[in-house]
Amino acid sequence: MVVREEARKMKLAAPHMAAASEEMRNAALQKIIETLEENRDAIFRENALDVQAAEETGVAKAVVKRLKFDENKLRDAIAGIRQMIGLTDPVGKVTLKRELDEGLVLERVSVPIGVIGVIFEARPDALIQISALCIKSGNCAILKGGKETARTNKILFGLVHGAAVAAGLPESCLLQVELHNEIDELLKCQGDVDLLIPRGSNQFVQYIMDNTNIPVMGHAAGICHIYLDERADLAKSVPVIVDAKTQYPAVCNAVETLLVNRKIADTALPVVLQALTEKGVMLRGTQEVAELVKGLLAKGCFGEARGNVCASQEANSVGDVQEPLEKRYEVEIMGEDDFATEYTDLIISLKLVDDVAEAADHINKFGSHHTDCILTEDDAAAEYFLQMVDSAGVYRNCSTRFADGFRYGFGAEVGVSTGKLHARGPVGLEGLVTYKYRLIGEGQLVGDYVSGKKQFHHKDI
Amino acid sequence: MVVREEARKMKLAAPHMAAASEEMRNAALQKIIETLEENRDAIFRENALDVQAAEETGVAKAVVKRLKFDENKLRDAIAGIRQMIGLTDPVGKVTLKRELDEGLVLERVSVPIGVIGVIFEARPDALIQISALCIKSGNCAILKGGKETARTNKILFGLVHGAAVAAGLPESCLLQVELHNEIDELLKCQGDVDLLIPRGSNQFVQYIMDNTNIPVMGHAAGICHIYLDERADLAKSVPVIVDAKTQYPAVCNAVETLLVNRKIADTALPVVLQALTEKGVMLRGTQEVAELVKGLLAKGCFGEARGNVCASQEANSVGDVQEPLEKRYEVEIMGEDDFATEYTDLIISLKLVDDVAEAADHINKFGSHHTDCILTEDDAAAEYFLQMVDSAGVYRNCSTRFADGFRYGFGAEVGVSTGKLHARGPVGLEGLVTYKYRLIGEGQLVGDYVSGKKQFHHKDI
Repeated sequence: MVVREEARKMKLAAPHMAAASEEMRNAALQKIIETLEENRDAIFRENALDVQAAEETGVAKAVVKRLKFDENKLRDAIAGIRQMIGLTDPVGKVTLKRELDEGLVLERVSVPIGVIGVIFEARPDALIQISALCIKSGNCAILKGGKETARTNKILFGLVHGAAVAAGLPESCLLQVELHNEIDELLKCQGDVDLLIPRGSNQFVQYIMDNTNIPVMGHAAGICHIYLDERADLAKSVPVIVDAKTQYPAVCNAVETLLVNRKIADTALPVVLQALTEKGVMLRGTQEVAELVKGLLAKGCFGEARGNVCASQEANSVGDVQEPLEKRYEVEIMGEDDFATEYTDLIISLKLVDDVAEAADHINKFGSHHTDCILTEDDAAAEYFLQMVDSAGVYRNCSTRFADGFRYGFGAEVGVSTGKLHARGPVGLEGLVTYKYRLIGEGQLVGDYVSGKKQFHHKDI
Repeated sequence: MVVREEARKMKLAAPHMAAASEEMRNAALQKIIETLEENRDAIFRENALDVQAAEETGVAKAVVKRLKFDENKLRDAIAGIRQMIGLTDPVGKVTLKRELDEGLVLERVSVPIGVIGVIFEARPDALIQISALCIKSGNCAILKGGKETARTNKILFGLVHGAAVAAGLPESCLLQVELHNEIDELLKCQGDVDLLIPRGSNQFVQYIMDNTNIPVMGHAAGICHIYLDERADLAKSVPVIVDAKTQYPAVCNAVETLLVNRKIADTALPVVLQALTEKGVMLRGTQEVAELVKGLLAKGCFGEARGNVCASQEANSVGDVQEPLEKRYEVEIMGEDDFATEYTDLIISLKLVDDVAEAADHINKFGSHHTDCILTEDDAAAEYFLQMVDSAGVYRNCSTRFADGFRYGFGAEVGVSTGKLHARGPVGLEGLVTYKYRLIGEGQLVGDYVSGKKQFHHKDI
């Protein structure tokens, strides 16, 4: 396949795809549900071959788990499409209607972006989700999935594409790219591809951004913060910190850095660090934090002499292994610049700050503008944080892990954007449309307005 | 000045600028009006030196005219700021408010983009307009104006910046860059500068796009089209074509290509070409057009035997000069690829098409997605055109020259975007904001929703 030629064909098909009625687009989604259900056994068979091949080549168990496409994943994927059918049509919304002058009416109407290239990791449900989002929003899409699920992707793509075409959508509405070197061809399709959405490792996303003139939407890093304020409610806050760090540490919305108000460090750190280390989290931090923790340890603040908040938790144990307190609470000293690190692992960076202002400055300097949270009962501190932190998501008293299209009620997401233009945060249907201005006149000339013969009256209607 | 350091300072000031109240931002605009009025004589003095220097170095008269900042331009600039004070605040608009679950509320709120770098041509009023747009929208801005108005820019910047700071905005809210080589420094400020808006020649904008990792908003070309449909009302249409081509041919929203329906070419071309050539427009076109025009000329369709529509116009004269009809109606033959040409001059490309579908295909292939117009009385053809043409502006029966922020009622514009992401068409205040998601909870954990202990209910409130 010559990607450039296929992309050009798709570009010409894009206005026809954009003109497809809401009924037709929803009918395509309905047909996709039916065909997936009818072909479940064949899908599972292909997926089993992918999984077997991965196991044979020694792919890590955690990764193999992600490759699996079973009854549960099919059910969830279908539930996602069903939910999407019910969502309001993102296309054709009139967001401005203004009479510029008598008989000269301006409208701003939402329209699909056109041709979107999505390069995603080896997760079969991603193919279904992304295709469905693009169909619902009237976009043509070029899809390249991870090679570890090549067989599953192939059968899924065939079924999804067949259903879309059977429902009346253009043949060129969806295209699958299967070879890794075709990604580089795709990067050169400026003019035909309107937007690239790469998902995957930081390096991969950065590679895409550095090697194309096509606009790229995505995030290259997810360095999320939690600031534990002096007026935080510890009983409420500690589980949030644990959830944000440990519930799924490999993802971009997991927390990487905990900033603790200096005034409460003595009392908060024992409770927080006990809860984190209990889940196997390793500690890094400034020299100040390392020394403070050492001092607290010497005073017996961890273990026996711990505060009431965590009294119900079993101390000093990680699983069944007993380890010396000194080892468990060892804080590896890190430099200032190390705070710009995304671990995506059970490691957390620790720093003390004087107040919410210092916390916000640190986050704006070292963060990735993804999602950051303040834990506090102080409304003024919370408002300052929400206002001053320059991130797509600014949270109060809840886990950073909520930054997700499904959790926001978008049905699904094509990715999370840490850029500030177009779409920010989890990107659902609204991020896949743009708009055009329609101006309807009766022969009006600009010359008449420049000469002063006529005047605009700009009446919103 | 080290631009990188100044940009970094500005980045840290940006959240404070974004937090400035609407009252403070409007007060700054009011103060700018006052200081401009108080210092009018000094401004005119500096401008006179710029103009004198330009004349001495032999700058073309048309350009010198653009450099002048006189009573009229000051009055218009002040009227623009006054209008902007009255516009709705673009910052702090809540565009989504949703209860994800009990006590967990998501809000999407519009916020300034942050730090914007604007590089603009030698037009003193542009400095005032751009500063005012950035202040109104809560953005910090780095401004680099054309060197031909260096003295005027310097005094204007000092007055505008002084007024903004006096009104309480951060010292680093505006920065002027004066040296040309500092543009290259500015291009390297990714991370600190959120958006670049270059204005000027195609090559210049393309240079900026090719040499920075900072997102760029703007247009590299304005290849606008008019399609004259078989059901066009010629009496209404001919003046629109003339206005779109000749009212100000040097700008991006002037028309470059006229597509004529083959069925009406015989009758329409004599009228249209007479009106265009009367204004000095030179003709280019396909071989088919060249031959057709030659044939029409031989039949005497131009000059004596012309139709009624143009009977009131004086034929065959361009100014006072009489020239042979053959010369006046000579169509220089052009190749297919030449249609992707922006003349910004009194030249027009001509082509015949079978129908609105062929017209739309041509525009999508050769246009720059700026602004394109259909002239027709046929509602179905118009609707097809407005739907299928993939441009920021799609017009019916009016001049492409209406594509402009002031004419759209945006108060002013920082530029016109031909990109499809973020902002499209004339970019006013709304294009200078983005949004953030605020999520307010009471200690909610993602783990509870993953395990099924809790469910989202997603109620819009």
